[in-house]
Amino acid sequence: MKHEKTDLVIIGSGPAGLAASIYAGRYRIRHVVIGKIMGGLITESHKVCNYPGFRSITGIELGFKMKEHAEEFGGLIVSATVDRIERDGDDFKVITSNGDEYLTKYVLVATGTKRRKLNAQGESEFLGKGVTYCATCDGMLYKDKIVAVLGGADSATTAAIYLADIAKKVYIIYRREQLRGEPIWVEQVLANKKIEIIYNTNVTGFEGKDLLQNLVLDNPYNGRLKIPVNGAFIEIGSDPDTSVIDGLGIQLNTYGYIKVKDSQMTNIRGIYAAGDITDASNGFQQVITAAAEGAVAAESIFKSLKQNLS
Amino acid sequence: MKHEKTDLVIIGSGPAGLAASIYAGRYRIRHVVIGKIMGGLITESHKVCNYPGFRSITGIELGFKMKEHAEEFGGLIVSATVDRIERDGDDFKVITSNGDEYLTKYVLVATGTKRRKLNAQGESEFLGKGVTYCATCDGMLYKDKIVAVLGGADSATTAAIYLADIAKKVYIIYRREQLRGEPIWVEQVLANKKIEIIYNTNVTGFEGKDLLQNLVLDNPYNGRLKIPVNGAFIEIGSDPDTSVIDGLGIQLNTYGYIKVKDSQMTNIRGIYAAGDITDASNGFQQVITAAAEGAVAAESIFKSLKQNLS
Repeated sequence: MKHEKTDLVIIGSGPAGLAASIYAGRYRIRHVVIGKIMGGLITESHKVCNYPGFRSITGIELGFKMKEHAEEFGGLIVSATVDRIERDGDDFKVITSNGDEYLTKYVLVATGTKRRKLNAQGESEFLGKGVTYCATCDGMLYKDKIVAVLGGADSATTAAIYLADIAKKVYIIYRREQLRGEPIWVEQVLANKKIEIIYNTNVTGFEGKDLLQNLVLDNPYNGRLKIPVNGAFIEIGSDPDTSVIDGLGIQLNTYGYIKVKDSQMTNIRGIYAAGDITDASNGFQQVITAAAEGAVAAESIFKSLKQNLS
Repeated sequence: MKHEKTDLVIIGSGPAGLAASIYAGRYRIRHVVIGKIMGGLITESHKVCNYPGFRSITGIELGFKMKEHAEEFGGLIVSATVDRIERDGDDFKVITSNGDEYLTKYVLVATGTKRRKLNAQGESEFLGKGVTYCATCDGMLYKDKIVAVLGGADSATTAAIYLADIAKKVYIIYRREQLRGEPIWVEQVLANKKIEIIYNTNVTGFEGKDLLQNLVLDNPYNGRLKIPVNGAFIEIGSDPDTSVIDGLGIQLNTYGYIKVKDSQMTNIRGIYAAGDITDASNGFQQVITAAAEGAVAAESIFKSLKQNLS
């Protein structure tokens, strides 16, 4: 189905996309948000404790609040998956996987990132019950507990250093022979007595009753194939979700994130990006930074729209 | 009184300072927040409707929530006014107006801006009762009402264009003979039938019963010295509040805002800045952007602290 032409299509319904919709609504920009999961990646956090103003809220609840907030100002939110964006003269066509077409002057790409999964047994079953993908989000829940960080590059080492200030003991379990990433973090990990590193080992399963209790290893450690932990932080990176912009010639940085200007515009006039998918906010991927980028993008699009009218 | 040396002093208790404290607390950075008004400038907004997640909240309440949030993670918040910052070897001394001294490794300047006041009669009395300093914050409250924008540069013209989409009628009252600022905005104001411009005129007073009813002019308009309005938007600019950094050699941009790098660090090692006082976030001064800058600053300081330890 072909929809009536609009001013802005926002792709993604996480904090960046919904914040952009709130601001776009307030600026009276006609727009549609297309997304599948309200709240995006934060719905994987069973508690968000670092979004200023909410001391503790589930990711799902925060996503819902932002959705309600966007709808209050007229944001039309469509539950669908975008397949691709095509040029149409000076405009763009946003095409969903079920064939719907949205003709629009501006596009805001806010598709975020996907945390890399380990794909081990029990991983999804214990998500939010000991298995997590975000130390900054969930670390505080493991005060004086035993945790493991799975991974060995920067996100894993910094997570381990952070967790060592909170937890009783921190394992790092890594498939390689030595840690990677910035030497500064590696040095600190090695010097930290709370951190114990298990090299050349993969986690193949998560076990427990209601909550996570054991990690299953593919290589015995101190003679055992299981180690008891309360929490497992899977820190093997994340990938920007840029499939929708394939073929448009949008510049990415070396890590695959979309390069944006201060206005959040990409190198393609009319296409903006906000949130975890961009190289903005000093690379610090948080709900608060994603939402701020969404707000800045909406203001920039508002200014551009008004300028093009005259 | 000289206090024990700390890692970070945050100057300012608005959204930027409090968000930085929330993150610093989670990173276990020893720190003190010194500020006078919890919530900073937002306490002047009697309703904040654009901070994603809160559909409508008073500025005072949002400030209080952020303060509670910061305190939950160990943020020590001191009610005082900072007089100046002095160098002390590689460290800094933050000195309050009552003579307290805080020795610290890092300083985060989050002192924000002060909206320029008109200094007209009744201006403070009707604040939040018709008088406001922020169209984006409060515009939606004046649907189908009569409003006036006081001022004639970019912030005034863009406010008028925005308000014309909401209000029934918008006056611009300006002391000069013609509007200033970007021609694009001026053209649109002139073309907009909802906007009526009163030149060569100052507002000298605000009158009403409980809510604002009339503006008093220094020059008769259509034979009258008063015009009835429901809302008055004072848009004569704001000034960054940089007095505390005088003499440190911190680089400002041409408008007097602190220049920051992506990490929110200034040109002086150890001194960071966040929120409305900086040139970041594409110059878009909002609660959400200030808070995001505070979060990024705290993360940068955390990384820097850990690097300097080794």
